[in-house]
Amino acid sequence: MLSLPRTARVNEVVARDGFQNERQFLPTAYKISLINRLAELGVRKIETTAFVSPKAVPQLADAEQVVRGINRLQGVVYSALVPNLKGAGRAIACGIDELNVVVSASTTHNQKNLGMRVEQSLEQIRAVVETAGTRTRVGVSIATAFGCPYEGEVPRDKVLGLAEHFRALSVNALTLADTTGMAVPDQVYGVCRKFAEVWPELDLTLHFHNTRGLGLANVLAGLAAGVTSFDSCLGGLGGCPFAPGATGNICTEDLVHMLEGMNIATGIGLRELISLAGELEQSVGHALPGQVARAGTRWDLHPKEE
Amino acid sequence: MLSLPRTARVNEVVARDGFQNERQFLPTAYKISLINRLAELGVRKIETTAFVSPKAVPQLADAEQVVRGINRLQGVVYSALVPNLKGAGRAIACGIDELNVVVSASTTHNQKNLGMRVEQSLEQIRAVVETAGTRTRVGVSIATAFGCPYEGEVPRDKVLGLAEHFRALSVNALTLADTTGMAVPDQVYGVCRKFAEVWPELDLTLHFHNTRGLGLANVLAGLAAGVTSFDSCLGGLGGCPFAPGATGNICTEDLVHMLEGMNIATGIGLRELISLAGELEQSVGHALPGQVARAGTRWDLHPKEE
Repeated sequence: MLSLPRTARVNEVVARDGFQNERQFLPTAYKISLINRLAELGVRKIETTAFVSPKAVPQLADAEQVVRGINRLQGVVYSALVPNLKGAGRAIACGIDELNVVVSASTTHNQKNLGMRVEQSLEQIRAVVETAGTRTRVGVSIATAFGCPYEGEVPRDKVLGLAEHFRALSVNALTLADTTGMAVPDQVYGVCRKFAEVWPELDLTLHFHNTRGLGLANVLAGLAAGVTSFDSCLGGLGGCPFAPGATGNICTEDLVHMLEGMNIATGIGLRELISLAGELEQSVGHALPGQVARAGTRWDLHPKEE
Repeated sequence: MLSLPRTARVNEVVARDGFQNERQFLPTAYKISLINRLAELGVRKIETTAFVSPKAVPQLADAEQVVRGINRLQGVVYSALVPNLKGAGRAIACGIDELNVVVSASTTHNQKNLGMRVEQSLEQIRAVVETAGTRTRVGVSIATAFGCPYEGEVPRDKVLGLAEHFRALSVNALTLADTTGMAVPDQVYGVCRKFAEVWPELDLTLHFHNTRGLGLANVLAGLAAGVTSFDSCLGGLGGCPFAPGATGNICTEDLVHMLEGMNIATGIGLRELISLAGELEQSVGHALPGQVARAGTRWDLHPKEE
């Protein structure tokens, strides 16, 4: 058999990565209720929002209200994206568990996405880590870790070099993000094995987009390399600004379905998750790319007699 | 690195598995032209049609015309599905290279799909092999090899038992079909490793449906187990009667994109394939689930300056 882990953590990003790509502003009460229900059905890490400029991302203008409004379930890590020191201050003031800061492995993408040079981002992250102190965890996401839509291939050593930098800063977690769905499985396997070798104690998360249909294949490659933490988005919500018409994040219920199908325990109730995805589809008002919610699970049998 | 083969064969099933699920009858001339162009751009095995009752599958009522109308490119295997001895006779009369016969691993599915008991199917297949003689190759597809939508789990030994039966009949090829998209990667890996052990010289093909988003992850598991032949359908055409709303076969251009992305040579021109998928979408008149045709390949970069 493929050597795969027996448990995995599925981190839900719908309230940030999903909602920030919607045209409409979703009601704050719905966001709060969704986060609460995700926690109740077993999700152990939830990205709740982003503390960004409401002008830049009006969909998440209610960041404070969301974080202050949710129930904080014991054992669940509530995180928020913060693009800079100002955002970090706002998130910490709301008592967030973990700050998620971002830097791109490729210069061009960092400039386009964050409006600054990589060195400036690293300086911001250093300042955020300092501000967070020991009260708040800091996780770093390395965007375009498996390829850049402007520069193409991203050398593995560039990603490893950045990671070493964050290790020296003692960040609590690291996410390798395939921001525009360019990763292929053997590449994922190779990068993850390398990380396991050079930084074995790292809490490593993989963040895939299903832009080119490879999301779950890349998860499988990550699992085979020993990774046990994956970001995903309810219903597969979340577009990709660089690939119009393409699907966004990998879909949480499809991911949980695959994992549970391989007897990799997630602790998440799949049926309830599928219900939530159905409600989400109603709430956003358009079809979602998730497939299990549509087709049913592999355990849903048809009656033999009609 | 994951240990993966360096080449793989992609078998195109759009002209049978794809078209039989369309509401409309596609013009014979288009079918012929599509098959010819698929062969020209490097596809080495093409399922051309099915020799079934035109009442049962009116979309393929032109089976004879299609097979007699195509150019037979050297080095390409042209196959056709035949449900019984009568169909085999028709296909052989047209000079087809390979007959594709089907039996389900699960009793209930065989009865629903073929209207007979498994034993009757085996008797039909024995007669087809006899009729084919040495002129025409015979490949057997074992449907519901990874799960049955009526019976649930299909024991691996049942599949292996059927395979042993066909080995004794000296069939030329065997396909394990995940008819309704129930397979999970570790299961695929386990079954394929077992086949490699007990029947190492077998020309084994995997036929996946992407019903629950696992198609390419299952291909990856097959590759890791040493399998190098996969069925797929241009544009991801092909529904599944047992999973309304779900996508059908895995998508050829998405599969070739994944394989070439991992430097597994297919010999198939990806850009031309994507063009053909675009034309197919026009021809069938509805959106296709393939993702690479929509998002572009991982090698399509954006200009750095706008």
